[in-house]
Amino acid sequence: MDIIDEVTEKGVTERRVDVTVDDEVVPGIVWFPDGSSGPRPTVLIGHGGTQHKRVPNVLSMARGLVRHLGYAAVAVDAPGHGDRVTDPAVAELARKNLEARLAGDTSGRLAQPDRSSEQMKAMVERSRQGSAEWSKVLDQISELPEIGSGPFGYWGVSMGTSVGLPFVAADKRIAAAVLGLNGLSGRPGQERFAEAAHSLTVPVLFMFQWDDELMTRQSGLDLFDAIGSAEKTMHINPGGHVGTPLHERTSYEDFYVRHLGPASTA
Amino acid sequence: MDIIDEVTEKGVTERRVDVTVDDEVVPGIVWFPDGSSGPRPTVLIGHGGTQHKRVPNVLSMARGLVRHLGYAAVAVDAPGHGDRVTDPAVAELARKNLEARLAGDTSGRLAQPDRSSEQMKAMVERSRQGSAEWSKVLDQISELPEIGSGPFGYWGVSMGTSVGLPFVAADKRIAAAVLGLNGLSGRPGQERFAEAAHSLTVPVLFMFQWDDELMTRQSGLDLFDAIGSAEKTMHINPGGHVGTPLHERTSYEDFYVRHLGPASTA
Repeated sequence: MDIIDEVTEKGVTERRVDVTVDDEVVPGIVWFPDGSSGPRPTVLIGHGGTQHKRVPNVLSMARGLVRHLGYAAVAVDAPGHGDRVTDPAVAELARKNLEARLAGDTSGRLAQPDRSSEQMKAMVERSRQGSAEWSKVLDQISELPEIGSGPFGYWGVSMGTSVGLPFVAADKRIAAAVLGLNGLSGRPGQERFAEAAHSLTVPVLFMFQWDDELMTRQSGLDLFDAIGSAEKTMHINPGGHVGTPLHERTSYEDFYVRHLGPASTA
Repeated sequence: MDIIDEVTEKGVTERRVDVTVDDEVVPGIVWFPDGSSGPRPTVLIGHGGTQHKRVPNVLSMARGLVRHLGYAAVAVDAPGHGDRVTDPAVAELARKNLEARLAGDTSGRLAQPDRSSEQMKAMVERSRQGSAEWSKVLDQISELPEIGSGPFGYWGVSMGTSVGLPFVAADKRIAAAVLGLNGLSGRPGQERFAEAAHSLTVPVLFMFQWDDELMTRQSGLDLFDAIGSAEKTMHINPGGHVGTPLHERTSYEDFYVRHLGPASTA
């Protein structure tokens, strides 16, 4: 892992790192309290589709975890996203397609997006890659003195759940996860996704938007239902895919404190 | 309003009061920080069916609101409940019936309980009475110097929602409400109940149990859907009617602080 640069602002140190996984560079950011040393509770944050490791909601959640709780936070660019975009024209098209779907007529709320089977397969493959990648990122991130042995939580909705749910199911270091804005919908790879959901055992907070333009209500309820964890809570709010109310950040923080504990004051 | 007695324990003063409403005595309890004077944010708590104003969950929530937030809390015996039971044998039968339904086979999750139409009508009438009563109780409670002009919130699930939802819809002094464990089910008086839900405008936190023995999932989702408030959130947890996880108390307190504000430090 290479440290690219580091800045500190209002008590939060933000360190750009490059993590090498299977000969591929995964650009990441680690946030922690200025001058701290670990181990400390750390939340791994998975961004959404067409986004990157430093979009506003990831950045402000990471800063909130550091400032409010004394936690650390980690975000990386998912495969094909952020600094890992290989074809800017394709990335731009994906962004425009998503915008169009979010702006579209919601009356039908189609579960099956209008995409070619080839595009869908590529998405599933990228999610699978991102999922496997997180465990290797975590191996290296835990060597940082500011983070150490954690404990670790995960936060990721929409594509952050497509990538993160199988990761959380497979990696026993993750003790609690906020997931959501996703469903069981008949996409390619659904059986494997449903199996991963069934195999989850850690507490899950599952976020859902009642008027999500990208999926049906039933699809979201089915995914919540499929989660095997004994402790799971679903929060449903009115509004579309990108409309989760800001007050839910308090829920995330309460949830992590309950399961990862407070940061040591050392 | 008559003060019956008053005790203070661990900083919480608990005052038993008798409120007279339409020539009927409504026994109540007011909790507030020892030695405080108002106005202060106050939560009115409606207990569940076959319960009373001082069942353990009401008592510990009231004490938590006082100790954690410096709020006041109020609970009263609903019509036909607690000190207002007129026929102990009937009350005991109702309690046993409820226990049997909670212990029963949940595979069918019947929306229509096995009760005579006469019993159902009496329940609806008692709920209507309890609903109207709360406004008159609030008139008198706000004359206490420890409470004054509030602001006011409501908390009540199950029968506490049957009674409280129409009250919150009608009384503009209530600024936020926690409701739940209830549904739109085809019972007598459902149209009036649905209309009251539609007319709600204040923020609502709606609690629901995913394996509730007393109602279907769809019935609960339909009631959440019917609530007219722009800000509403549904929390779904696994388990039966009486299994809401204790950690949700943090959600209630966060919710009230967000909408009623902090207690004055005066």
